[in-house]
Amino acid sequence: MDSNKLGHHISEQFNKELEDIRNKVLIMGGLLEQQIDLAVQAFTTGNIEIAEVVIKQDNQVDEMEMAIDQECTEILARRQPTAFDLRLLMSVIKIVHELERVGDKAKRVSEMAIQLGGGNGKVTYYEIEHMAELVKSMLHDALDAFARLDLANLSQITERDENVDREYDNILRQLITRMMEDPRHITRALDVLWTVRALERIGDHACYICEHLIYIVKGEDVRHSTQHQLEEKINH
Amino acid sequence: MDSNKLGHHISEQFNKELEDIRNKVLIMGGLLEQQIDLAVQAFTTGNIEIAEVVIKQDNQVDEMEMAIDQECTEILARRQPTAFDLRLLMSVIKIVHELERVGDKAKRVSEMAIQLGGGNGKVTYYEIEHMAELVKSMLHDALDAFARLDLANLSQITERDENVDREYDNILRQLITRMMEDPRHITRALDVLWTVRALERIGDHACYICEHLIYIVKGEDVRHSTQHQLEEKINH
Repeated sequence: MDSNKLGHHISEQFNKELEDIRNKVLIMGGLLEQQIDLAVQAFTTGNIEIAEVVIKQDNQVDEMEMAIDQECTEILARRQPTAFDLRLLMSVIKIVHELERVGDKAKRVSEMAIQLGGGNGKVTYYEIEHMAELVKSMLHDALDAFARLDLANLSQITERDENVDREYDNILRQLITRMMEDPRHITRALDVLWTVRALERIGDHACYICEHLIYIVKGEDVRHSTQHQLEEKINH
Repeated sequence: MDSNKLGHHISEQFNKELEDIRNKVLIMGGLLEQQIDLAVQAFTTGNIEIAEVVIKQDNQVDEMEMAIDQECTEILARRQPTAFDLRLLMSVIKIVHELERVGDKAKRVSEMAIQLGGGNGKVTYYEIEHMAELVKSMLHDALDAFARLDLANLSQITERDENVDREYDNILRQLITRMMEDPRHITRALDVLWTVRALERIGDHACYICEHLIYIVKGEDVRHSTQHQLEEKINH
């Protein structure tokens, strides 16, 4: 944590509040990384109990989002912050919303694991595990950058989303081929498709977290920028 | 507009600022309704020029989101509002984000229209038009409730999402049948599937707007509530 940024308040109490918020975001992020792990494990092993744990824990994710959101709003009302502090609080609300949506995707993967009941054709397992690793590392690194309020690695994180998209296209093509070869597999292949799509979206949310972080640090809204524009903005 | 709520400020200027924000949200909402119309028209007629208009206008949607978001943040910094005004500004930021995501869905429908180039099998046209009407009316009514800060019709809007989901399942089944009957149609059927999925999600965003509106008026965060819980909260 950059103590120049978060430790500059005369009010010790305000410093503590902001640090508390930041810690809660990181705890929530840790839970989401675990949710992704468990969901993919449930999917590749067909373990329905694990899938049910993920679905149950998603309520906890939702509650965390609402609690952090409320805490930020209360601080806004009580402290009436401006500049960096205001941007931090506004962006935390957006970041926990991205995390909540990551949670929805993990839940979706688990639902597909249950629906498929283990018999989901092993062809794409390796690819799905690989894709999950990719998006999980993007999310992890985005949260790590948030913890340190450090933009240095951001463009390297968002860049990796291209690999995710490539992997997604690759699996999609395999699935279509399989559906064509044996139309009886179409329903199951669609369930795998929803899973892969959910994982692909997690990569997007990790990128959005990076964008929110740039806004906190630089004060510039870089949503809807291209990779090239993003790099320019980080370096200026 | 409930003048008890938005017209209560001693500062005429602050009143004007809040009303200005509200108008901008409604203008943005109008653009999104148009985007849905055009996207579905492009899809069912195969008119690529219309599809391209939607894709181009999506930049405008993105810019509107960022402009309204920034305006809200500036008012927060300058006016340091609390209670109702704070909730209004925080929720407007969330509502325009829902609208921006609606825009993404309209764009997606248009991209599928281009990809299919008009030859997308007319079987599901009627159903897709019907589904688009459903979600567009939900969005329209949610924005109308926002304009009047009136919760009276909200549960009736969110309730309609069940019809959307039923329609979605129905079209999905048709598509799977068609894929099984002729595997050569699988790729095209998947493009139709993405379209239907995008429309279904617009219904969800309309429901989320209703939830944000309940927060503005009642001060209670009702996200992740069931239809039954929502009705309870509106009536108490």
